[in-house]
Amino acid sequence: MSTSPEIQPRQDDVRQRLIEKSIGLFVERGYAATTVREIVEAAGVSKPVLYYYFKNKEGLYLEIMNGIGQLFDQQVEALHSTGGTVRRRLLDFFTGMFDAAQENLAVVRLAYTIYFGPPQGAPYIDFNRFFDQTLATVDALIIEGINNGEISPCNRSALNWSLVGSYHTILEDQICRNPPRIDRDGLIAVISLILDGVAPQADHQTFPGADQ
Amino acid sequence: MSTSPEIQPRQDDVRQRLIEKSIGLFVERGYAATTVREIVEAAGVSKPVLYYYFKNKEGLYLEIMNGIGQLFDQQVEALHSTGGTVRRRLLDFFTGMFDAAQENLAVVRLAYTIYFGPPQGAPYIDFNRFFDQTLATVDALIIEGINNGEISPCNRSALNWSLVGSYHTILEDQICRNPPRIDRDGLIAVISLILDGVAPQADHQTFPGADQ
Repeated sequence: MSTSPEIQPRQDDVRQRLIEKSIGLFVERGYAATTVREIVEAAGVSKPVLYYYFKNKEGLYLEIMNGIGQLFDQQVEALHSTGGTVRRRLLDFFTGMFDAAQENLAVVRLAYTIYFGPPQGAPYIDFNRFFDQTLATVDALIIEGINNGEISPCNRSALNWSLVGSYHTILEDQICRNPPRIDRDGLIAVISLILDGVAPQADHQTFPGADQ
Repeated sequence: MSTSPEIQPRQDDVRQRLIEKSIGLFVERGYAATTVREIVEAAGVSKPVLYYYFKNKEGLYLEIMNGIGQLFDQQVEALHSTGGTVRRRLLDFFTGMFDAAQENLAVVRLAYTIYFGPPQGAPYIDFNRFFDQTLATVDALIIEGINNGEISPCNRSALNWSLVGSYHTILEDQICRNPPRIDRDGLIAVISLILDGVAPQADHQTFPGADQ
Protein backbone atom coordinates (compact mmCIF):
# COMPACT_ATOMS: atom_id res chain seq x y z
CA MET A 1 0.00 0.00 0.00
CA SER A 2 1.50 3.35 -0.97
CA THR A 3 1.20 6.15 1.54
CA SER A 4 1.10 9.89 1.11
CA PRO A 5 3.10 12.05 3.50
CA GLU A 6 -0.08 13.55 4.85
CA ILE A 7 -1.55 10.33 6.19
CA GLN A 8 1.49 8.33 7.16
CA PRO A 9 1.86 9.41 10.80
CA ARG A 10 -1.31 8.09 12.40
CA GLN A 11 -2.68 5.85 9.72
CA ASP A 12 -4.82 3.53 11.82
CA ASP A 13 -6.06 6.39 13.95
CA VAL A 14 -7.34 8.32 10.98
CA ARG A 15 -8.86 5.26 9.35
CA GLN A 16 -10.64 4.28 12.54
CA ARG A 17 -11.83 7.85 13.12
CA LEU A 18 -13.36 7.98 9.64
CA ILE A 19 -15.15 4.70 10.32
CA GLU A 20 -16.49 5.80 13.69
CA LYS A 21 -17.59 9.25 12.58
CA SER A 22 -19.33 7.88 9.49
CA ILE A 23 -21.23 5.26 11.51
CA GLY A 24 -22.50 8.02 13.78
CA LEU A 25 -23.56 10.20 10.86
CA PHE A 26 -25.15 7.33 8.91
CA VAL A 27 -27.28 6.43 11.95
CA GLU A 28 -28.17 9.99 12.94
CA ARG A 29 -28.82 11.53 9.54
CA GLY A 30 -29.25 8.46 7.34
CA TYR A 31 -26.82 6.97 4.83
CA ALA A 32 -28.27 8.80 1.85
CA ALA A 33 -28.30 12.20 3.56
CA THR A 34 -24.70 11.96 4.78
CA THR A 35 -22.09 13.49 2.47
CA VAL A 36 -18.37 12.79 2.17
CA ARG A 37 -17.79 16.40 3.19
CA GLU A 38 -19.65 15.89 6.47
CA ILE A 39 -17.73 12.71 7.23
CA VAL A 40 -14.28 14.20 6.64
CA GLU A 41 -15.18 17.33 8.58
CA ALA A 42 -16.34 15.22 11.54
CA ALA A 43 -13.10 13.20 11.34
CA GLY A 44 -10.96 16.31 10.95
CA VAL A 45 -9.32 15.22 7.69
CA SER A 46 -9.53 16.23 4.02
CA LYS A 47 -11.53 14.44 1.33
CA PRO A 48 -8.49 12.79 -0.33
CA VAL A 49 -7.78 10.99 2.94
CA LEU A 50 -11.18 9.31 2.80
CA TYR A 51 -10.73 8.51 -0.90
CA TYR A 52 -7.31 7.04 -0.16
CA TYR A 53 -8.57 4.62 2.46
CA PHE A 54 -12.05 3.78 1.21
CA LYS A 55 -12.33 5.07 -2.37
CA ASN A 56 -15.74 6.67 -1.63
CA LYS A 57 -18.75 6.67 0.71
CA GLU A 58 -19.86 3.27 -0.60
CA GLY A 59 -16.42 1.81 0.09
CA LEU A 60 -16.47 3.15 3.64
CA TYR A 61 -19.92 1.66 4.24
CA LEU A 62 -18.87 -1.72 2.81
CA GLU A 63 -15.78 -1.74 5.02
CA ILE A 64 -17.97 -1.18 8.10
CA MET A 65 -20.43 -3.91 7.13
CA ASN A 66 -17.74 -6.39 6.15
CA GLY A 67 -16.30 -5.79 9.60
CA ILE A 68 -19.38 -7.09 11.41
CA GLY A 69 -19.75 -9.84 8.83
CA GLN A 70 -16.28 -11.10 9.77
CA LEU A 71 -17.09 -10.80 13.45
CA PHE A 72 -20.18 -12.94 12.94
CA ASP A 73 -18.22 -15.55 10.97
CA GLN A 74 -15.67 -15.70 13.80
CA GLN A 75 -18.42 -16.55 16.28
CA VAL A 76 -19.67 -19.41 14.12
CA GLU A 77 -16.07 -20.55 13.54
CA ALA A 78 -15.24 -20.44 17.26
CA LEU A 79 -18.08 -22.83 17.91
CA HIS A 80 -16.47 -25.55 15.83
CA SER A 81 -13.20 -25.42 17.73
CA THR A 82 -14.66 -25.70 21.24
CA GLY A 83 -15.86 -28.82 22.99
CA GLY A 84 -18.20 -29.33 25.93
CA THR A 85 -21.87 -30.13 26.16
CA VAL A 86 -24.35 -28.88 23.60
CA ARG A 87 -25.91 -26.75 26.31
CA ARG A 88 -22.53 -25.16 27.08
CA ARG A 89 -21.83 -24.50 23.41
CA LEU A 90 -25.28 -23.01 22.81
CA LEU A 91 -24.79 -20.67 25.76
CA ASP A 92 -21.29 -19.77 24.55
CA PHE A 93 -22.56 -19.15 21.03
CA PHE A 94 -25.39 -16.85 22.07
CA THR A 95 -23.37 -14.94 24.67
CA GLY A 96 -20.44 -14.68 22.23
CA MET A 97 -22.67 -13.16 19.56
CA PHE A 98 -24.30 -10.93 22.17
CA ASP A 99 -20.90 -9.67 23.38
CA ALA A 100 -19.65 -9.04 19.84
CA ALA A 101 -22.83 -7.11 19.03
CA GLN A 102 -22.60 -5.14 22.28
CA GLU A 103 -19.08 -4.03 21.41
CA ASN A 104 -20.31 -2.89 18.01
CA LEU A 105 -23.73 -1.62 18.91
CA ALA A 106 -23.50 1.45 16.66
CA VAL A 107 -22.83 -0.77 13.64
CA VAL A 108 -25.69 -3.11 14.55
CA ARG A 109 -27.92 -0.05 14.83
CA LEU A 110 -26.74 1.12 11.41
CA ALA A 111 -27.52 -2.30 9.93
CA TYR A 112 -31.07 -2.01 11.30
CA THR A 113 -31.61 1.46 9.81
CA ILE A 114 -30.49 0.15 6.41
CA TYR A 115 -32.39 -3.13 6.61
CA PHE A 116 -35.70 -1.72 7.83
CA GLY A 117 -35.48 1.90 6.75
CA PRO A 118 -36.63 3.35 3.44
CA PRO A 119 -34.36 2.74 0.43
CA GLN A 120 -31.21 4.82 0.81
CA GLY A 121 -29.11 3.63 -2.10
CA ALA A 122 -26.58 1.88 0.12
CA PRO A 123 -24.61 -0.98 -1.51
CA TYR A 124 -26.35 -4.32 -1.08
CA ILE A 125 -25.45 -6.38 1.97
CA ASP A 126 -26.99 -9.82 2.47
CA PHE A 127 -28.17 -9.21 6.04
CA ASN A 128 -30.51 -12.20 5.86
CA ARG A 129 -27.57 -14.60 5.81
CA PHE A 130 -26.76 -13.75 9.45
CA PHE A 131 -30.14 -14.98 10.59
CA ASP A 132 -30.11 -17.99 8.25
CA GLN A 133 -26.65 -19.08 9.36
CA THR A 134 -27.62 -18.64 13.00
CA LEU A 135 -30.64 -20.93 12.49
CA ALA A 136 -28.48 -23.49 10.65
CA THR A 137 -25.77 -23.38 13.33
CA VAL A 138 -28.23 -23.82 16.18
CA ASP A 139 -30.07 -26.58 14.32
CA ALA A 140 -26.84 -28.57 13.98
CA LEU A 141 -26.30 -28.27 17.73
CA ILE A 142 -29.88 -29.32 18.46
CA ILE A 143 -29.46 -32.42 16.29
CA GLU A 144 -26.25 -33.26 18.12
CA GLY A 145 -27.99 -32.75 21.47
CA ILE A 146 -30.89 -35.01 20.53
CA ASN A 147 -28.50 -37.67 19.24
CA ASN A 148 -26.34 -37.66 22.37
CA GLY A 149 -29.34 -37.61 24.70
CA GLU A 150 -28.80 -34.10 26.07
CA ILE A 151 -32.02 -32.89 24.48
CA SER A 152 -35.27 -34.85 24.59
CA PRO A 153 -36.86 -35.61 21.23
CA CYS A 154 -38.93 -32.52 20.41
CA ASN A 155 -40.06 -30.25 17.60
CA ARG A 156 -36.60 -29.21 16.36
CA SER A 157 -37.80 -26.20 14.42
CA ALA A 158 -39.82 -24.92 17.39
CA LEU A 159 -36.83 -25.29 19.70
CA ASN A 160 -34.60 -23.51 17.20
CA TRP A 161 -37.00 -20.59 16.75
CA SER A 162 -37.57 -20.26 20.49
CA LEU A 163 -33.81 -20.00 21.11
CA VAL A 164 -32.86 -17.84 18.11
CA GLY A 165 -36.08 -15.83 18.33
CA SER A 166 -35.55 -14.95 21.99
CA TYR A 167 -31.89 -14.14 21.40
CA HIS A 168 -32.74 -11.93 18.43
CA THR A 169 -35.33 -9.89 20.35
CA ILE A 170 -32.99 -9.52 23.33
CA LEU A 171 -30.28 -8.23 21.01
CA GLU A 172 -32.76 -5.84 19.43
CA ASP A 173 -33.62 -4.54 22.88
CA GLN A 174 -30.00 -3.43 23.28
CA ILE A 175 -30.31 -1.08 20.32
CA CYS A 176 -33.94 -0.03 20.89
CA ARG A 177 -33.96 0.89 24.55
CA ASN A 178 -31.74 2.94 26.76
CA PRO A 179 -31.22 1.40 29.20
CA PRO A 180 -32.15 -2.00 27.75
CA ARG A 181 -34.80 -3.90 29.70
CA ILE A 182 -32.83 -7.15 29.61
CA ASP A 183 -29.09 -7.79 29.81
CA ARG A 184 -26.55 -10.59 29.25
CA ASP A 185 -27.59 -12.41 32.44
CA GLY A 186 -31.18 -12.18 31.27
CA LEU A 187 -30.17 -13.77 27.96
CA ILE A 188 -28.46 -16.63 29.79
CA ALA A 189 -31.57 -17.14 31.95
CA VAL A 190 -33.82 -17.27 28.86
CA ILE A 191 -31.64 -19.77 26.96
CA SER A 192 -31.30 -21.86 30.13
CA LEU A 193 -35.05 -21.90 30.78
CA ILE A 194 -35.79 -23.07 27.23
CA LEU A 195 -33.08 -25.76 27.36
CA ASP A 196 -34.23 -26.91 30.81
CA GLY A 197 -37.64 -27.46 29.29
CA VAL A 198 -36.32 -29.88 26.69
CA ALA A 199 -33.75 -31.59 28.89
CA PRO A 200 -34.29 -35.22 29.88
CA GLN A 201 -36.37 -35.07 33.06
CA ALA A 202 -33.57 -36.05 35.44
CA ASP A 203 -31.71 -32.91 34.35
CA HIS A 204 -34.56 -30.49 34.83
CA GLN A 205 -33.02 -27.63 36.68
CA THR A 206 -36.10 -25.54 37.04
CA PHE A 207 -37.96 -28.21 39.00
CA PRO A 208 -35.43 -29.23 41.64
CA GLY A 209 -38.10 -30.66 43.91
CA ALA A 210 -40.15 -32.45 41.28
CA ASP A 211 -40.57 -36.25 41.11
CA GLN A 212 -38.23 -37.86 38.65
CA MET B 1 -69.20 16.04 9.36
CA SER B 2 -69.86 18.33 6.41
CA THR B 3 -69.32 16.87 3.00
CA SER B 4 -68.45 18.45 -0.29
CA PRO B 5 -70.29 17.30 -3.41
CA GLU B 6 -67.04 15.95 -4.83
CA ILE B 7 -66.39 13.40 -2.10
CA GLN B 8 -69.89 12.43 -1.00
CA PRO B 9 -70.49 9.47 -3.32
CA ARG B 10 -67.88 6.97 -2.20
CA GLN B 11 -66.60 8.50 1.01
CA ASP B 12 -65.20 5.42 2.71
CA ASP B 13 -63.72 4.16 -0.54
CA VAL B 14 -61.76 7.32 -1.12
CA ARG B 15 -60.63 7.57 2.49
CA GLN B 16 -59.47 3.95 2.49
CA ARG B 17 -57.72 4.37 -0.84
CA LEU B 18 -55.77 7.37 0.44
CA ILE B 19 -54.70 5.33 3.48
CA GLU B 20 -53.63 2.33 1.43
CA LYS B 21 -51.78 4.29 -1.24
CA SER B 22 -49.95 6.38 1.33
CA ILE B 23 -48.83 3.30 3.29
CA GLY B 24 -47.37 1.86 0.10
CA LEU B 25 -45.58 5.08 -0.77
CA PHE B 26 -44.30 5.66 2.78
CA VAL B 27 -42.77 2.18 2.83
CA GLU B 28 -41.38 2.26 -0.71
CA ARG B 29 -40.06 5.80 -0.87
CA GLY B 30 -39.90 6.76 2.80
CA TYR B 31 -42.21 9.02 4.79
CA ALA B 32 -40.09 12.14 4.33
CA ALA B 33 -39.67 11.67 0.57
CA THR B 34 -43.38 11.11 -0.10
CA THR B 35 -45.36 14.21 -1.05
CA VAL B 36 -49.07 14.94 -0.75
CA ARG B 37 -49.10 15.29 -4.54
CA GLU B 38 -47.80 11.72 -4.98
CA ILE B 39 -50.35 10.34 -2.55
CA VAL B 40 -53.35 12.02 -4.15
CA GLU B 41 -52.13 11.05 -7.62
CA ALA B 42 -51.79 7.42 -6.57
CA ALA B 43 -55.28 7.52 -5.05
CA GLY B 44 -56.76 9.33 -8.06
CA VAL B 45 -58.14 12.27 -6.11
CA SER B 46 -57.30 15.95 -5.71
CA LYS B 47 -55.33 17.49 -2.84
CA PRO B 48 -58.38 19.04 -1.11
CA VAL B 49 -59.82 15.56 -0.69
CA LEU B 50 -56.78 14.52 1.35
CA TYR B 51 -56.92 17.77 3.33
CA TYR B 52 -60.61 17.22 3.99
CA TYR B 53 -60.14 13.77 5.47
CA PHE B 54 -56.74 14.04 7.13
CA LYS B 55 -55.79 17.73 7.24
CA ASN B 56 -52.25 16.95 5.94
CA LYS B 57 -49.62 14.22 5.50
CA GLU B 58 -48.98 14.11 9.26
CA GLY B 59 -52.68 13.62 9.92
CA LEU B 60 -52.85 10.77 7.43
CA TYR B 61 -49.83 9.09 9.04
CA LEU B 62 -51.29 9.49 12.54
CA GLU B 63 -54.59 8.00 11.38
CA ILE B 64 -52.74 4.94 10.06
CA MET B 65 -50.72 4.50 13.24
CA ASN B 66 -53.67 5.07 15.54
CA GLY B 67 -55.40 2.33 13.59
CA ILE B 68 -52.85 -0.32 14.54
CA GLY B 69 -52.69 1.09 18.06
CA GLN B 70 -56.40 0.44 18.45
CA LEU B 71 -56.03 -3.03 16.99
CA PHE B 72 -53.34 -3.83 19.54
CA ASP B 73 -55.47 -2.50 22.39
CA GLN B 74 -58.35 -4.69 21.21
CA GLN B 75 -56.14 -7.78 21.46
CA VAL B 76 -55.18 -6.94 25.05
CA GLU B 77 -58.80 -6.12 25.84
CA ALA B 78 -60.08 -9.38 24.32
CA LEU B 79 -57.81 -11.29 26.66
CA HIS B 80 -59.61 -9.95 29.72
CA SER B 81 -63.01 -11.07 28.51
CA THR B 82 -62.08 -14.69 27.72
CA GLY B 83 -61.70 -17.56 30.13
CA GLY B 84 -59.90 -20.88 29.86
CA THR B 85 -56.50 -22.03 30.99
CA VAL B 86 -53.53 -19.70 31.07
CA ARG B 87 -51.98 -21.79 28.31
CA ARG B 88 -55.07 -21.35 26.14
CA ARG B 89 -55.17 -17.61 26.74
CA LEU B 90 -51.46 -17.19 26.01
CA LEU B 91 -51.88 -19.07 22.74
CA ASP B 92 -54.99 -17.01 21.91
CA PHE B 93 -53.18 -13.77 22.72
CA PHE B 94 -50.12 -14.49 20.58
CA THR B 95 -52.08 -15.91 17.65
CA GLY B 96 -54.59 -13.04 17.90
CA MET B 97 -51.80 -10.46 17.71
CA PHE B 98 -50.14 -12.44 14.92
CA ASP B 99 -53.37 -12.53 12.90
CA ALA B 100 -54.02 -8.82 13.40
CA ALA B 101 -50.48 -8.02 12.30
CA GLN B 102 -50.75 -10.36 9.31
CA GLU B 103 -53.87 -8.54 8.15
CA ASN B 104 -52.04 -5.22 8.44
CA LEU B 105 -48.58 -6.26 7.37
CA ALA B 106 -47.97 -3.13 5.30
CA VAL B 107 -48.65 -0.94 8.34
CA VAL B 108 -46.40 -3.07 10.54
CA ARG B 109 -43.70 -2.72 7.90
CA LEU B 110 -44.21 1.04 7.87
CA ALA B 111 -43.88 1.15 11.66
CA TYR B 112 -40.54 -0.68 11.35
CA THR B 113 -39.20 1.74 8.74
CA ILE B 114 -40.08 4.66 11.01
CA TYR B 115 -38.86 3.06 14.23
CA PHE B 116 -35.53 1.79 12.90
CA GLY B 117 -34.94 4.00 9.89
CA PRO B 118 -33.14 7.34 9.84
CA PRO B 119 -35.07 10.34 11.19
CA GLN B 120 -37.83 11.26 8.74
CA GLY B 121 -39.70 13.95 10.62
CA ALA B 122 -42.79 11.76 11.14
CA PRO B 123 -45.01 12.70 14.11
CA TYR B 124 -43.99 10.89 17.28
CA ILE B 125 -45.62 7.55 18.00
CA ASP B 126 -44.82 5.67 21.20
CA PHE B 127 -44.00 2.35 19.52
CA ASN B 128 -42.24 1.11 22.66
CA ARG B 129 -45.53 0.90 24.51
CA PHE B 130 -46.62 -2.05 22.35
CA PHE B 131 -43.70 -4.13 23.52
CA ASP B 132 -43.97 -2.94 27.13
CA GLN B 133 -47.69 -3.70 27.30
CA THR B 134 -47.13 -7.10 25.73
CA LEU B 135 -44.54 -7.94 28.40
CA ALA B 136 -46.87 -6.69 31.15
CA THR B 137 -49.84 -8.63 29.77
CA VAL B 138 -47.89 -11.87 29.48
CA ASP B 139 -46.36 -11.39 32.93
CA ALA B 140 -49.82 -11.13 34.48
CA LEU B 141 -50.78 -14.42 32.81
CA ILE B 142 -47.56 -16.08 33.97
CA ILE B 143 -48.26 -15.02 37.56
CA GLU B 144 -51.78 -16.40 37.28
CA GLY B 145 -50.41 -19.66 35.86
CA ILE B 146 -47.88 -20.05 38.65
CA ASN B 147 -50.53 -19.31 41.26
CA ASN B 148 -53.03 -21.81 39.89
CA GLY B 149 -50.38 -24.52 39.36
CA GLU B 150 -50.45 -24.53 35.57
CA ILE B 151 -46.89 -23.23 35.42
CA SER B 152 -44.10 -24.58 37.62
CA PRO B 153 -42.25 -22.00 39.70
CA CYS B 154 -39.56 -20.58 37.39
CA ASN B 155 -37.70 -17.44 36.43
CA ARG B 156 -40.73 -15.32 35.49
CA SER B 157 -38.76 -12.75 33.52
CA ALA B 158 -36.94 -15.46 31.54
CA LEU B 159 -40.22 -17.17 30.70
CA ASN B 160 -41.75 -13.85 29.64
CA TRP B 161 -38.81 -12.91 27.39
CA SER B 162 -38.69 -16.38 25.85
CA LEU B 163 -42.38 -16.18 24.90
CA VAL B 164 -42.54 -12.53 23.85
CA GLY B 165 -39.05 -12.64 22.31
CA SER B 166 -39.87 -15.66 20.14
CA TYR B 167 -43.21 -14.17 19.14
CA HIS B 168 -41.60 -10.85 18.24
CA THR B 169 -38.96 -12.44 15.99
CA ILE B 170 -41.55 -14.66 14.30
CA LEU B 171 -43.66 -11.57 13.59
CA GLU B 172 -40.60 -9.78 12.25
CA ASP B 173 -39.97 -12.70 9.93
CA GLN B 174 -43.35 -12.04 8.31
CA ILE B 175 -42.23 -8.59 7.20
CA CYS B 176 -38.58 -9.44 6.49
CA ARG B 177 -38.85 -12.51 4.34
CA ASN B 178 -40.92 -13.48 1.37
CA PRO B 179 -42.02 -16.17 1.88
CA PRO B 180 -41.56 -16.12 5.66
CA ARG B 181 -39.56 -19.03 7.07
CA ILE B 182 -42.06 -19.65 9.86
CA ASP B 183 -45.85 -19.36 9.92
CA ARG B 184 -48.78 -19.30 12.37
CA ASP B 185 -48.50 -23.04 13.07
CA GLY B 186 -44.80 -22.54 13.73
CA LEU B 187 -45.66 -19.81 16.24
CA ILE B 188 -48.09 -22.15 18.03
CA ALA B 189 -45.41 -24.88 18.12
CA VAL B 190 -42.86 -22.46 19.63
CA ILE B 191 -45.18 -21.13 22.34
CA SER B 192 -46.30 -24.70 23.11
CA LEU B 193 -42.74 -25.99 23.39
CA ILE B 194 -41.78 -23.23 25.83
CA LEU B 195 -44.92 -23.73 27.92
CA ASP B 196 -44.45 -27.52 27.92
CA GLY B 197 -41.02 -26.91 29.40
CA VAL B 198 -42.41 -25.05 32.41
CA ALA B 199 -45.52 -27.20 32.86
CA PRO B 200 -45.77 -29.44 35.92
CA GLN B 201 -44.15 -32.71 34.89
CA ALA B 202 -47.36 -34.69 34.58
CA ASP B 203 -48.45 -32.29 31.86
CA HIS B 204 -45.30 -32.46 29.76
CA GLN B 205 -46.57 -32.87 26.24
CA THR B 206 -43.24 -33.08 24.48
CA PHE B 207 -42.14 -36.16 26.40
CA PRO B 208 -45.13 -38.47 26.03
CA GLY B 209 -43.05 -41.54 26.80
CA ALA B 210 -41.12 -40.13 29.74
CA ASP B 211 -41.50 -41.30 33.34
CA GLN B 212 -43.84 -39.14 35.31
